[in-house]
Amino acid sequence: MPNISQKGQRMPASPIRKLTPYADKAKQDGKTVFHLNIGQPDIETPEGMINAIKNVDFKVWAYTPSEGTLSYRKQLTKYYNRNGYNITPEDIIVTAGGSEAISITFMTCLDAGDEVLVPEPYYANYNGFASQSDIVVKPILSYIDSGFALPPIAEFEKHISSKTKAIFICSPNNPTGYLYSREEMEALKALVLKYDLYLFADEAYREFVYGDQPFVSPMHLDGLDENVVIIDTVSKRYSACGARLGCIITKNKKFWQTAIKFAQARLSPGLVEQIAGEAAIDTPDEYFDRVKAEYNSRRNTIVSALNKMEGVYCPNPGGAFYVMAQLPIDNSDKFCQWMLEEFSYNNQTVMMAPATGFYSTPGLGYNQVRLAYVLNNSDLEKAMTCLAEALRVYPGRVDNAEGLKLSAETVA
Amino acid sequence: MPNISQKGQRMPASPIRKLTPYADKAKQDGKTVFHLNIGQPDIETPEGMINAIKNVDFKVWAYTPSEGTLSYRKQLTKYYNRNGYNITPEDIIVTAGGSEAISITFMTCLDAGDEVLVPEPYYANYNGFASQSDIVVKPILSYIDSGFALPPIAEFEKHISSKTKAIFICSPNNPTGYLYSREEMEALKALVLKYDLYLFADEAYREFVYGDQPFVSPMHLDGLDENVVIIDTVSKRYSACGARLGCIITKNKKFWQTAIKFAQARLSPGLVEQIAGEAAIDTPDEYFDRVKAEYNSRRNTIVSALNKMEGVYCPNPGGAFYVMAQLPIDNSDKFCQWMLEEFSYNNQTVMMAPATGFYSTPGLGYNQVRLAYVLNNSDLEKAMTCLAEALRVYPGRVDNAEGLKLSAETVA
Repeated sequence: MPNISQKGQRMPASPIRKLTPYADKAKQDGKTVFHLNIGQPDIETPEGMINAIKNVDFKVWAYTPSEGTLSYRKQLTKYYNRNGYNITPEDIIVTAGGSEAISITFMTCLDAGDEVLVPEPYYANYNGFASQSDIVVKPILSYIDSGFALPPIAEFEKHISSKTKAIFICSPNNPTGYLYSREEMEALKALVLKYDLYLFADEAYREFVYGDQPFVSPMHLDGLDENVVIIDTVSKRYSACGARLGCIITKNKKFWQTAIKFAQARLSPGLVEQIAGEAAIDTPDEYFDRVKAEYNSRRNTIVSALNKMEGVYCPNPGGAFYVMAQLPIDNSDKFCQWMLEEFSYNNQTVMMAPATGFYSTPGLGYNQVRLAYVLNNSDLEKAMTCLAEALRVYPGRVDNAEGLKLSAETVA
Repeated sequence: MPNISQKGQRMPASPIRKLTPYADKAKQDGKTVFHLNIGQPDIETPEGMINAIKNVDFKVWAYTPSEGTLSYRKQLTKYYNRNGYNITPEDIIVTAGGSEAISITFMTCLDAGDEVLVPEPYYANYNGFASQSDIVVKPILSYIDSGFALPPIAEFEKHISSKTKAIFICSPNNPTGYLYSREEMEALKALVLKYDLYLFADEAYREFVYGDQPFVSPMHLDGLDENVVIIDTVSKRYSACGARLGCIITKNKKFWQTAIKFAQARLSPGLVEQIAGEAAIDTPDEYFDRVKAEYNSRRNTIVSALNKMEGVYCPNPGGAFYVMAQLPIDNSDKFCQWMLEEFSYNNQTVMMAPATGFYSTPGLGYNQVRLAYVLNNSDLEKAMTCLAEALRVYPGRVDNAEGLKLSAETVA
């Protein structure tokens, strides 16, 4: 039998999806499983988008230009310029989701062995895209005590070498929900200019910001045109994860002209998606008002329920629809699997993402889980009741920080 | 300004799309341009597929499993088993077009510096996907005199080293239209078994076979389960290029389990596409009968017109919707650009793909062009009249083989 590549062997499996067989088994056994493990919202896709699909009127389902149709890029420009980005359609390349935007961005800027600095914890699939291109992700640790604020700039500087090509942020953040402040963005700006680095910004959760602090994009900062690459997607914005429609935005022409070569190799983004995406730009404000109010209320439900549990700590994040909670447990992988395999309360249980998948520093994340508040308040409350009960009876419960530390070292 | 990667600099631009600015200019100047340069058929997508789009009834445009929905993979299994493939839904991974299927297949089997042998001329974007992963494409030359039949096995063997991991074929072939015979497939089987190589088969044009010779897939051969990876797409089969819906088929479980990790990183193929793809499987035979009859008639039109031109030679290929023609010209890049920039006949001209983009051996393809017969017979006839006139007046016309050879050496 011919061999699999080394790259294929090294490629990480999705840590978010790896517990799925246990969840399937639990459901086969008749348990209700509350899915807080994955960022698939239950929110309805805007009607205008669905209607655009239903009203397609082409006879030939044809290729579009590799950079996306001009009419979609014009609509996108309208949307981004309403958000103060000051771009033109020529600054955009339409992609198959945020995923392809990341892959193309990595290949455009980094060679094998090159490094990208990413505040940790971070979205697990960044590792997958890095692994595809033999790129090295250097994690810069952020802490739950500060709600996962931007790590001190000095920590970034410690890890900058001639191999460092970029800093990659996600704000509002997946998995922590943290929203970077203007001060933090200005600090990043000074850093990338000082070392002549790219600043990649994953803005999948731009629309989901709660409270008074405004969303600040690197596109809002002056003097960064050559450094900034925005990664975006309609997946979360319009609850259209299955559309696989994203984009890259940059004012760096050399980047654009290189990235388009990768886009040309795969020929075209999807036509129907672009038609629907075009319609989405006219989604009324009321849609977002309603969705944001709903998420905000869910965030309050989940954060308040978590912090009421003995030994649990959960910061109240400024955006996205995730929280990272610290639990009094020995090992989040074991705990999340145990919840599905062995635990139930009123024949219900909860599926969560062990935080280990979001840390690449060994030994971290063993006492944290990520919860996506993608279910309604009533289900969230039931899920929180389940979790509280589970923590009460979990055999691997660890109640003191020393025990936690020890346990993390054992498994590391 | 931060630097572009070496990979990005090396990445080839699409040779098929590089003449587009000249075609745009010609059209702005009021010329009619017959597009025979790109495999975008004018054939209508099956009604059932379009209706499936119009009838979507979901409220949330959600992710699907990374390997594709079970119901789509079940329908695909029906289609492939009608074609004698003997597969199950577990042998399939649904992808974003054939393009993503190739990318994932390359990454699953080859590391940087590894080699894949490809009969030349070949589909230009294979270079792009190889370049993305720093993989080396080794061309094995086929000849227009034999209609681009499979090169002698001894030629493959000459290029096999410890770095060789796979042989990559496309049948019916893009760009040549050549359809491999059972004998040729059996010879490839013996070769890959002897050297324990993968056999990648791009079958985008499976449905388009003319004449009596049957289509033979490696899936029709016994004892190759661990070696064969099929690359497929609905793009050409249902004239649905803009759907970006393809798949990988393999019975090699280790391959599948590795490939799915790359598929998980990009989360999901498109949902609407899979719904439409599911409906497409029930496309009535009459659709294909009609489409094949149309292509067959166009093939006859174009092949016969080309061979009537002084100094032109065009084999009559067994499948796909391309021909490669040898022209009495000094340089196909120059000629194709000249056709757009300087030539017109009755205010019309023709856009073709210079064959240089399909050869990676330096100096080859300068007296060949690829023509896609994706226009109706009447337009094809007008295009052929144009081409005949262009060849009559082209300043770089070269009428003897010696001149051709010299010219190729000059530009190489």
